[in-house]
Amino acid sequence: MRYNPLNVIMNPSSIAIVGASNNFRTMGTIQFLNLIKSGFPGEVLPVHPKHGHVLGRKAYPSVGELPYAPDLAVLVVPTRLVPEMLEDFGSLGTTHAVIITAGFKETGDAGLGLEQKIVEIADTYGIRFLGPNCLGIINTHLPLNITVGPLLDRKGKLGLASQSGTYIAQIVSYLHKKGIVMSKAISVGNEANTDITDCLEYLGDDEDTKAIGLYIEGIRDAGRFLEVARQVSRHKPIVAQYVGGTEAGARSGSSHTGAMAGPDYLYDGLFEQAGIIRVDTIEEVYSTGWALATQPPLRGRRIAILTNSGGPGSGIATTCNSNGLEVPEFSQGIQERVSAFLPGHASAKNPVDLTFHIDMDTLTEKIPQVLFESDEIDGVIIHGIMDTGFMNMLYPFLKEYVPVSAEQFEKMGEISMEPLLRMPAAYGKPLMISSFFGREDHCIRVFHENGIPTFDAPEKAAKAMAALYRHLLIRSRDHDEPVRPCANIPGQAQEIMQQSRQGAIDEYRAKNLLKAYNIPTTREMIADHLEEALGHAREIGYPVVLKACSQHITHKTEEGMVYLNIADDDSLARAFHRLRAKEQDCAVLVAEMLRGDREFMAGISTHPGFPPCVMFGLGGVFAEALNDFTIRMAPLSRCDALEMIEGLSSRVLVGPYRNMKPADREAIADILVQLGQIALDFPRIKEIDLNPIIIAEGQPKVADALIIIE
Amino acid sequence: MRYNPLNVIMNPSSIAIVGASNNFRTMGTIQFLNLIKSGFPGEVLPVHPKHGHVLGRKAYPSVGELPYAPDLAVLVVPTRLVPEMLEDFGSLGTTHAVIITAGFKETGDAGLGLEQKIVEIADTYGIRFLGPNCLGIINTHLPLNITVGPLLDRKGKLGLASQSGTYIAQIVSYLHKKGIVMSKAISVGNEANTDITDCLEYLGDDEDTKAIGLYIEGIRDAGRFLEVARQVSRHKPIVAQYVGGTEAGARSGSSHTGAMAGPDYLYDGLFEQAGIIRVDTIEEVYSTGWALATQPPLRGRRIAILTNSGGPGSGIATTCNSNGLEVPEFSQGIQERVSAFLPGHASAKNPVDLTFHIDMDTLTEKIPQVLFESDEIDGVIIHGIMDTGFMNMLYPFLKEYVPVSAEQFEKMGEISMEPLLRMPAAYGKPLMISSFFGREDHCIRVFHENGIPTFDAPEKAAKAMAALYRHLLIRSRDHDEPVRPCANIPGQAQEIMQQSRQGAIDEYRAKNLLKAYNIPTTREMIADHLEEALGHAREIGYPVVLKACSQHITHKTEEGMVYLNIADDDSLARAFHRLRAKEQDCAVLVAEMLRGDREFMAGISTHPGFPPCVMFGLGGVFAEALNDFTIRMAPLSRCDALEMIEGLSSRVLVGPYRNMKPADREAIADILVQLGQIALDFPRIKEIDLNPIIIAEGQPKVADALIIIE
Repeated sequence: MRYNPLNVIMNPSSIAIVGASNNFRTMGTIQFLNLIKSGFPGEVLPVHPKHGHVLGRKAYPSVGELPYAPDLAVLVVPTRLVPEMLEDFGSLGTTHAVIITAGFKETGDAGLGLEQKIVEIADTYGIRFLGPNCLGIINTHLPLNITVGPLLDRKGKLGLASQSGTYIAQIVSYLHKKGIVMSKAISVGNEANTDITDCLEYLGDDEDTKAIGLYIEGIRDAGRFLEVARQVSRHKPIVAQYVGGTEAGARSGSSHTGAMAGPDYLYDGLFEQAGIIRVDTIEEVYSTGWALATQPPLRGRRIAILTNSGGPGSGIATTCNSNGLEVPEFSQGIQERVSAFLPGHASAKNPVDLTFHIDMDTLTEKIPQVLFESDEIDGVIIHGIMDTGFMNMLYPFLKEYVPVSAEQFEKMGEISMEPLLRMPAAYGKPLMISSFFGREDHCIRVFHENGIPTFDAPEKAAKAMAALYRHLLIRSRDHDEPVRPCANIPGQAQEIMQQSRQGAIDEYRAKNLLKAYNIPTTREMIADHLEEALGHAREIGYPVVLKACSQHITHKTEEGMVYLNIADDDSLARAFHRLRAKEQDCAVLVAEMLRGDREFMAGISTHPGFPPCVMFGLGGVFAEALNDFTIRMAPLSRCDALEMIEGLSSRVLVGPYRNMKPADREAIADILVQLGQIALDFPRIKEIDLNPIIIAEGQPKVADALIIIE
Repeated sequence: MRYNPLNVIMNPSSIAIVGASNNFRTMGTIQFLNLIKSGFPGEVLPVHPKHGHVLGRKAYPSVGELPYAPDLAVLVVPTRLVPEMLEDFGSLGTTHAVIITAGFKETGDAGLGLEQKIVEIADTYGIRFLGPNCLGIINTHLPLNITVGPLLDRKGKLGLASQSGTYIAQIVSYLHKKGIVMSKAISVGNEANTDITDCLEYLGDDEDTKAIGLYIEGIRDAGRFLEVARQVSRHKPIVAQYVGGTEAGARSGSSHTGAMAGPDYLYDGLFEQAGIIRVDTIEEVYSTGWALATQPPLRGRRIAILTNSGGPGSGIATTCNSNGLEVPEFSQGIQERVSAFLPGHASAKNPVDLTFHIDMDTLTEKIPQVLFESDEIDGVIIHGIMDTGFMNMLYPFLKEYVPVSAEQFEKMGEISMEPLLRMPAAYGKPLMISSFFGREDHCIRVFHENGIPTFDAPEKAAKAMAALYRHLLIRSRDHDEPVRPCANIPGQAQEIMQQSRQGAIDEYRAKNLLKAYNIPTTREMIADHLEEALGHAREIGYPVVLKACSQHITHKTEEGMVYLNIADDDSLARAFHRLRAKEQDCAVLVAEMLRGDREFMAGISTHPGFPPCVMFGLGGVFAEALNDFTIRMAPLSRCDALEMIEGLSSRVLVGPYRNMKPADREAIADILVQLGQIALDFPRIKEIDLNPIIIAEGQPKVADALIIIE
């Protein structure tokens, strides 16, 4: 296995902790308490300057006086003491640490200085550490828990890494109620030395972790994150919430862990490309992650819905449909088999609605058996299974009529669910449960114990199922290796870049650069005087377009420097003189007048911490208003480029829209892949804007190009 | 108070129930049990053919033998017995009923016949009834409960009406856990006699109900629903989930209550126009409804966020921003006052992040006081208040070190929240609480008891606050009375319609009809031969457009029957001959060639159960692909028309986009209001399609028009 600092941090055989005392009002003490009470099998060594014992364990007066170098040091000390302590551990020979202490980069410049100092100390001693400003780690398999929340469940399947400590350390009881159990959980804090990408890589390799949930306020090195996530997501599902995409979200994240956020569309593109399933709430990170971690993968998108009530059935059905799943009407054969178990005229079409009734085995066994067996169905969602939750609620009202104790009554109520519990694994199909009851209901507890995901609302079960379908699409991606189309940088491109100074490159050169990368552009020639322009126009053939060509004019259309549809020599001469009247001596571009039927745009944008970003979208003058575009990071895979095209809301325009020929998707994909290559070849490029790219006879051609360099 | 059948149904002084027995495995028995145990103050009269007593209450062998006519009859009997029983109650003089029994319209034709029969019986006897196929009613103020779920809470504020019985009858324990208490709740079933609009009207008038939640699978009479909802939503917030908008959702609803569903965009338009806040999940119907029912209305959109952790702060902040709320950075003054209570360098900017700590009064009193007092802030969201939930979780680990019992420990943990509880009412600002703890935490229980909405995830609190903001916008609507712009139907329009047969009206007549309603169209004239056409063209002035004008050609552009930009007589003659070559003797339209800079579309569509629908959207050949439109039902108010324009995703195109003049919103609104009027004046009109409406110099003009009549 490759080295990852978390291999040791998450599995130490001995831990020293500095900052725990016998005062339960301090965080360090609570963390130490949880560490010793969680059942950690290794040795724990508290360090305390005054107390001989901390919570009954022998304490050492200083780091230097520890009997040996523990695998892991945990620091919960005042900020100013961290550098010294870290050095002490370094001298002792400890090579891994978790720094809980806050007050570093997130507080501003002074804190940033201190953070740099501890990074240097760590480098000097070869220490790898998590934090600072983190809330600890949990490994339910070892077990190991250094958070403020006690460990309630063991040996889970969902791995978590979070830029918020709360989402690791303060959700134990919440997750317990939902029946969700973590495998490993990591609060990354300020990521001074070990970042969320390291965590992702670790969780990707970790055999106890079957799916990964991430909470993200900002990614520092999006290129590396993408590379790692792309590998992991091929075999292990990843869900992530990103909160930095709005003004207030970015401000909040920055004051929290000093995270550098970016706009939402950037992270949408990053996650899509990385094969990460994006969710909007932390609830979904857990619950969708849990569904992905526990259920067999979905092999198709045909979902059966079984309920004891029409409302939840309709809610699940409509949420399935709106999230890309099908709820097919069952074949006659299935309908007949299902009908045999239905009261009266209840519907057997899908959703199957049993209507309110008390005998549960139709819902827990008979009909599920038919559905799981069927080859018409890829996954099953059930709402309405319940027993003691409902019974116990009624008991206070019933007891005067029923001659049994509450305990007997509860026991009488318990139904058997063995057959249903076995079905998902036996048939390799996922099962999701929706119920308005929680752990007060015996059925829900049994589902929890058996790793069947339960949701407290019908729509949530459907959304989780849709995430499994999304994962199927990610797993099935073809041609997902980034391509580097050119072995060498084309000489002509090199030359153009060398001759260009900071700012915009003029359109003529910009297009020549594109041509060097085989990107199709409109045919055009540059002219310094009218005679030359007329010659070009005759060669290209009327009608032509005349434009000013200057690096100083970046919005030609708005400035009236473009004349379209020039039909003959006279018109050309008039246009030429008008251009020159506006901009003396300006070079003039004579271009073919392309008769297209649709306009798209493509480009490059650059963002701190990100590889160059390739964009594709609707083009023309309305591009901004329609705001329909997709984004991916260079280098692009063939699959990335094609998914960018399919990702447009108005993707139907790419196809054979109305009487128009379909646009050549492969040719568009070529442009996008090459654009990424250009940006990687020339890091000086700050922005490329190809708008419009006109589709004429199905073929894309760049009609205008702007390149801005630093 | 106006008559509404629910006035009696929800507040009877005596109830007879048929279908309850001493067998607890039947629904009727459980419902009777809940009725007598919920504390209903009136008389209950079970009817049973064999048992002298049912659950200890004297039973009557038949309806005819009841001692008097009870206010309300409840039927939970086999389907075939319902008509007879209803007649018996009618003969007795009972005028209101709840029919729980299923097996009617939802099962197909036979059931439909039976349903019609009971409707007739009811009409004969003057009975108003709820159902059939419903799950009962709840009035927590009387109290009265005829559902399968026991009544756990009293005197709530949220009124519910649902086309799914489960969402009324089987969510008691769910709502109890969330601290949500219903005022009145109605399961409407098949709505054979009393429908969800009656319920809405009743809940709108009901003083105990402060907000209304609806679950909808399909509305039968959308016009009446709109009229009622529009009145109610001005003073009382309404939230609604609609599930019939997808293929599977519609199928499910139809087999459930026989509901007739419509596409999602139709209900989007209906809800917007009615002032209903649409939500996607049943959870939000309850939780958002509860927030609206309990909190002071929002008076602006500036939200303060206070947390003990950066993650929830960021999640709330970003969800606020994405849902139209502001999270303003506090002024220096507020920041200083807040900072005084903050540890170290924690952020006081907004969100305020206290970071993990155990002393709660900063979170429950000191900082909230500053925020509620401030005139910079309209609402407050707090995450992280907790006491015994956390303490009790730790106690098993702590007890060996702490010399107190679990009970003492819990008592020690309880914090006081009196000051915070008073703030929302005292300052007239809403408060939302997010916590990962539930009722196991003392703070959460106190919030529940005091009607402060709590959410188990940060994003949910933010979304609920956004719903309060949406309600503010609805409350503040101007000019919200539907307008009938024409007193009489214009004579010219009458004439055109009288002359038109089923199918499409030709463009020339269609435009004349529009002109009669003062809708601006391109200037154009009809010609039967070339000389006439040339004369028209010279009168209108070149360039002109030439089009075939025939009711048989509805897709002129696709069929090559439109010649744009004709510059002179010669070109006109060529175009004229080509048109005639394609369509002999066809009339020809000569129209001004409008040079616009944007294209929109507007129209009328008709849907069963709905008033005529007015549409507005992006126009031109790409309209279908861009799919950006809004819809409202006729008659429109001025406000409706303007909101349709503002409702476009690409609404920026209406404004002064790039170098273009802003489009005249009022002129567009006129077109929309008039379109609605046309559709109301002529119910034969099935469809109107005005595409494109060209904006030239800011003014809209209809360039093409299609009207289809029945």
